Amino acid sequence: MDIAAVNALPYEDFVYIFGNVVEKCPIITAAVWSRRPFVNFTALEAAISEFIDGLPESGKEGILRCHPDLAGRDLHGGTLTRESREEQAGAGMDALNSVEASNMARLNEEYKERFGFPFVICARMTDKVNILRQLSERCRNERAVERARGIEEVKKICRVRLQALVVGEASNKL
Amino acid sequence: MDIAAVNALPYEDFVYIFGNVVEKCPIITAAVWSRRPFVNFTALEAAISEFIDGLPESGKEGILRCHPDLAGRDLHGGTLTRESREEQAGAGMDALNSVEASNMARLNEEYKERFGFPFVICARMTDKVNILRQLSERCRNERAVERARGIEEVKKICRVRLQALVVGEASNKL
Repeated sequence: MDIAAVNALPYEDFVYIFGNVVEKCPIITAAVWSRRPFVNFTALEAAISEFIDGLPESGKEGILRCHPDLAGRDLHGGTLTRESREEQAGAGMDALNSVEASNMARLNEEYKERFGFPFVICARMTDKVNILRQLSERCRNERAVERARGIEEVKKICRVRLQALVVGEASNKL
Repeated sequence: MDIAAVNALPYEDFVYIFGNVVEKCPIITAAVWSRRPFVNFTALEAAISEFIDGLPESGKEGILRCHPDLAGRDLHGGTLTRESREEQAGAGMDALNSVEASNMARLNEEYKERFGFPFVICARMTDKVNILRQLSERCRNERAVERARGIEEVKKICRVRLQALVVGEASNKL
């Protein structure tokens, strides 16, 4: 779909197609529909990013809390969104050995206990070794640093998901 | 569940239980978890209300756009959330005669065309005759008036949904 087709969508179709570019936050997509028309892919991405940046800190934490754990109960229970399932599988989260799985579970719990939101990382842009390393390192950050870092990752995930839906000059660069 | 039990919930359980008190907007529930502990039902309800009021106008429109039409394709296609299905059935939306159904469909389209978001009303607190009358009347409002009116209805729906989940002194008054 090109940007002209995106701009022509009624809000219902727009939300149906783009509603999960930020995990389980269709309100964000539904809000940026008010900003049409978008001149290009970058403008659509920027509108989403600006909406997120305008939220209070609690709202940013809210976005993070809508994300599933990596290799967590939603993956094992089959309740991940389609996008998350594909991203986690791509990073090998569905094929951890028992040591990796145990480390991941322990570190996820430690992270959530410390920050009150889950560890979020753009799985498409990394692999399981790097994910485990970053999870371990990021557990030691300050809360405000980690909230901002999580939101950066949310925006990377959003970009990857948008790229799968919109074609255009800027949509294939990362 | 009483308010002490609510305050003791980890964010994952809190979002799982309360995630749809504002239709398809778990980010709102997930954000207000940051505001714990809540002294009572009213404080929890107020935290949600304040979060909504703090959103930009586009965000409020985003909330409205996450709502299904009354007696619309989600009801007929079986894709309503559990809460919406029960509320719409309670107001007789699943048992319209052909004239009512045709009026409802026409007025819903007229409303969405005019405002760019759907007609939202707390179905639990009314019936099909009143819904059709209000839909017809509200189609003639100004956009800003109707956005604010829709958000008022979102808050009423939220209160009803919270009341089904939390017991407490203020939770049975409307």
